[in-house]
Amino acid sequence: MGAGLEELRKQFGIVADLEAAGGVLGWDQQTYMPPGGAQGRAMQLATLGRVAHEQLVSDDMGAALEAAESEVEGLDPDSDEVRTVRKARREFDKARRVPSEWVAEFRRVTALAHQVWEKARAEADFSQFQEPLEEIVQLRRDYADFFAPFDHVYDPLLDDFEPGMKMAEVKAVFDELRPAQISLVQDIVDRGRPVDDSVVHQQFDEQKQWDFGIEVAKALGYDLESGRQDKAVHPFTSGFGTGDVRITTRFDTGFLNTALFGTMHEAGHAMYEQGVNPEFDRAPLGVTTSLAVHESQSRMWENLVGRSRAFWVGFYERLQEVFPGQLGQVDLKTFYRAVNKVMPSLIRVEADEATYNLHIMLRFELEIAMMEGTLDVGDLPEAWNSKFEEFLGLVPPDDAVGVLQDIHWSGGMIGYFPTYALGNLVAAQLWGKIYEDIPDLESGIEKGEFGALLGWLRENVHRHGSKFEPVELLTRITGSGLTAKPYLRYLREKFGDIYGL
Amino acid sequence: MGAGLEELRKQFGIVADLEAAGGVLGWDQQTYMPPGGAQGRAMQLATLGRVAHEQLVSDDMGAALEAAESEVEGLDPDSDEVRTVRKARREFDKARRVPSEWVAEFRRVTALAHQVWEKARAEADFSQFQEPLEEIVQLRRDYADFFAPFDHVYDPLLDDFEPGMKMAEVKAVFDELRPAQISLVQDIVDRGRPVDDSVVHQQFDEQKQWDFGIEVAKALGYDLESGRQDKAVHPFTSGFGTGDVRITTRFDTGFLNTALFGTMHEAGHAMYEQGVNPEFDRAPLGVTTSLAVHESQSRMWENLVGRSRAFWVGFYERLQEVFPGQLGQVDLKTFYRAVNKVMPSLIRVEADEATYNLHIMLRFELEIAMMEGTLDVGDLPEAWNSKFEEFLGLVPPDDAVGVLQDIHWSGGMIGYFPTYALGNLVAAQLWGKIYEDIPDLESGIEKGEFGALLGWLRENVHRHGSKFEPVELLTRITGSGLTAKPYLRYLREKFGDIYGL
Repeated sequence: MGAGLEELRKQFGIVADLEAAGGVLGWDQQTYMPPGGAQGRAMQLATLGRVAHEQLVSDDMGAALEAAESEVEGLDPDSDEVRTVRKARREFDKARRVPSEWVAEFRRVTALAHQVWEKARAEADFSQFQEPLEEIVQLRRDYADFFAPFDHVYDPLLDDFEPGMKMAEVKAVFDELRPAQISLVQDIVDRGRPVDDSVVHQQFDEQKQWDFGIEVAKALGYDLESGRQDKAVHPFTSGFGTGDVRITTRFDTGFLNTALFGTMHEAGHAMYEQGVNPEFDRAPLGVTTSLAVHESQSRMWENLVGRSRAFWVGFYERLQEVFPGQLGQVDLKTFYRAVNKVMPSLIRVEADEATYNLHIMLRFELEIAMMEGTLDVGDLPEAWNSKFEEFLGLVPPDDAVGVLQDIHWSGGMIGYFPTYALGNLVAAQLWGKIYEDIPDLESGIEKGEFGALLGWLRENVHRHGSKFEPVELLTRITGSGLTAKPYLRYLREKFGDIYGL
Repeated sequence: MGAGLEELRKQFGIVADLEAAGGVLGWDQQTYMPPGGAQGRAMQLATLGRVAHEQLVSDDMGAALEAAESEVEGLDPDSDEVRTVRKARREFDKARRVPSEWVAEFRRVTALAHQVWEKARAEADFSQFQEPLEEIVQLRRDYADFFAPFDHVYDPLLDDFEPGMKMAEVKAVFDELRPAQISLVQDIVDRGRPVDDSVVHQQFDEQKQWDFGIEVAKALGYDLESGRQDKAVHPFTSGFGTGDVRITTRFDTGFLNTALFGTMHEAGHAMYEQGVNPEFDRAPLGVTTSLAVHESQSRMWENLVGRSRAFWVGFYERLQEVFPGQLGQVDLKTFYRAVNKVMPSLIRVEADEATYNLHIMLRFELEIAMMEGTLDVGDLPEAWNSKFEEFLGLVPPDDAVGVLQDIHWSGGMIGYFPTYALGNLVAAQLWGKIYEDIPDLESGIEKGEFGALLGWLRENVHRHGSKFEPVELLTRITGSGLTAKPYLRYLREKFGDIYGL
């Protein structure tokens, strides 16, 4: 390694450490921090954000970057060195447009907004959250302005979560997706053969749910020597380097799916972060490449694996052993259909695969309207409810299960939601290639063996960290960029079978 | 507030935030971090340490300090403003002597040493810990050298924990203490009326211990809205501002005292930090004044309150309700004597009041020898065991319950131990004054009412943070500096009564 690249790595290491520290504080805030810590935590996160940002945009960093750029000239464009420098340049140039004071203010405001959101949600009262959200929307508009001119005010936000992606591209994909998904749901309803999922709506002891979830997560390949599970109001995964990637889960003693598929989902996220090349730790490439790719991993393990018939061929007997009273007399087919019941419902994270993306498109449209200024934050609950009825045929009975259900906006993460739907698409697209490369994939899953699948993902996706931008990565693996077709085909096949369409 | 002082507060706020972040990471490391996180955590702590240090010693800070010094000239020397500037000057001047690189290296080495110590202790094998400890001793010598010339190489270390205190002063106090405590223990042994403490050595359900401990901690006045309890191998208290002060506890299902008095001890620490004037949050005065004063609070609540007869008059029936099988037939006197049994034992944190300081003096002497270079780290276990026999008449059967029992050296905290013994002295000294000011203290404690005591401590000790240095604080309250006499008198009276001396 040349001196410039070495200095670049060193400088970036400091930024990475400060960001990891912020990550630990964020994890703590959502798991164990007592209420009295909120004000102090907001200041700590603000300071960490500002100091990390100052490090990132420092003149020393700029000099190291230039030196490194000279050093890697002429090297293989796919080498780690060239890609490291390219990624660092991208981060540096973006960060240079943003004042450190904005970063600190954004961190402070969102840390406090988190507490307000938790309370507002608990009390099902959006009005408490209106003012913080207004502040956040304004801060996000200011952020977009740092990147003017842009095609759309949403683009700079989206780029932080999905590098290179534009609002118009997402919109085009969603325009293809929406009618197809709505018509699928309509077909299912019209078929008039509703699935009975009462078997998953029984009483399930929390500790037993926890233990079974851990057993499954371990079997999938989540390494608990470098991770752990805790409870959180809104489940998430948080990694601080490949050696410490933690998941959180929410438990509902009256509904088996919440924790069961939640755990597989978060374990999917966590395995991605655990699988990044450890040589990239604390380096520019040591982060995952995008949120859509991240979500492709969680959704793949949750749905393409976890909600597949093959998976339950392997695991259902074990689950029956854990809950003999509830499931001992329930056959596999009934259980499989129950966990795949399609039914428009209120909560995104518990939505079935056929309706899930509709939850996302709804949020995407509302975000765009808020950012464009055509929707006032004060009118958001009403807009939410009316669009919810339009997309899903339901009106939420209160804000807690409506507009307040997700944590993202309180964290300032406007622009994040679409990556969930894109993740579904990416998962299905990868899945086709995986089947080509591992012909006996399904029989492996039936035996509870996931090593081949995880190995494939490690090799083709995880280990690269952010070496390749998402579309490039997808193209390298599958030969084409993002497309909705494999996902729509997957949905039609799976639910056509279940519902006899 | 003048502009200089305001700028000083702002600059110090950044340092405080970074130190709080490091505190959270340290707490996490000892409570929830998975093993795989150790390497990354070491780097994160190193970076936080270095960045905080760089902020503290920055030229901006120096300029703000000078401006503030001009502003407060002529103000009341006891005003918050003057004291803030004085404390900031002290911190700044000390930190300017220490290179940031040393701070980062010290943090990194100690974070890694923590993991090694945990493993060495679990396996009762000092040899694993020898190399890290050698590194630490060398780093501490280097640290002392930054403050040369000094009277003794131990002085600069001690000053970080006990501002203004010198090794020679501690030694003088210990020289008075040691023969008196040894002769007390000898008198107790000679009296030939050993206390039977088998009642505290029964099986006690962990969850019930936890619940009772929390009940007691709340009753004492520990605010769990601004705190929480977790389990840790080596109990400690960790505060990140007055709104978030956490305790940790260790449980032994075969020995009631461990968690019971451990919880009271840590709650004592925590109430001190929770009681600092909230206006000092993130400011130079917002930390506690010294470790001895800190320990005076924990030892007071653990022993002068928690091991008093008055306390158990109020709480024993409740404890009997929680453990009816174990204690239902045990009378108060038997229980009181059992929790006050004097008996030389291996573990410092579980030692009785009469022998406790002997554990400290032993460590103090070994630390001095290591720092002077007259004791090689490799010879430490032997030196420990032989001094242990000399002071306490016992030889530890292995290193886990011998030289490896305490966390401090793995954290680089050489110079810390003497503050424990000094804390006992301070507690007894304050206690005399408290009795003068609250004549019905004992009857309040018998009723389970601790508000008057906590109020007194808040008013006289806690709220000041580090406004007054420890000896000044003690003198303002009691009219005299540190003295061993009240503690020795307290021991003689209490154990004279129990053992009929």
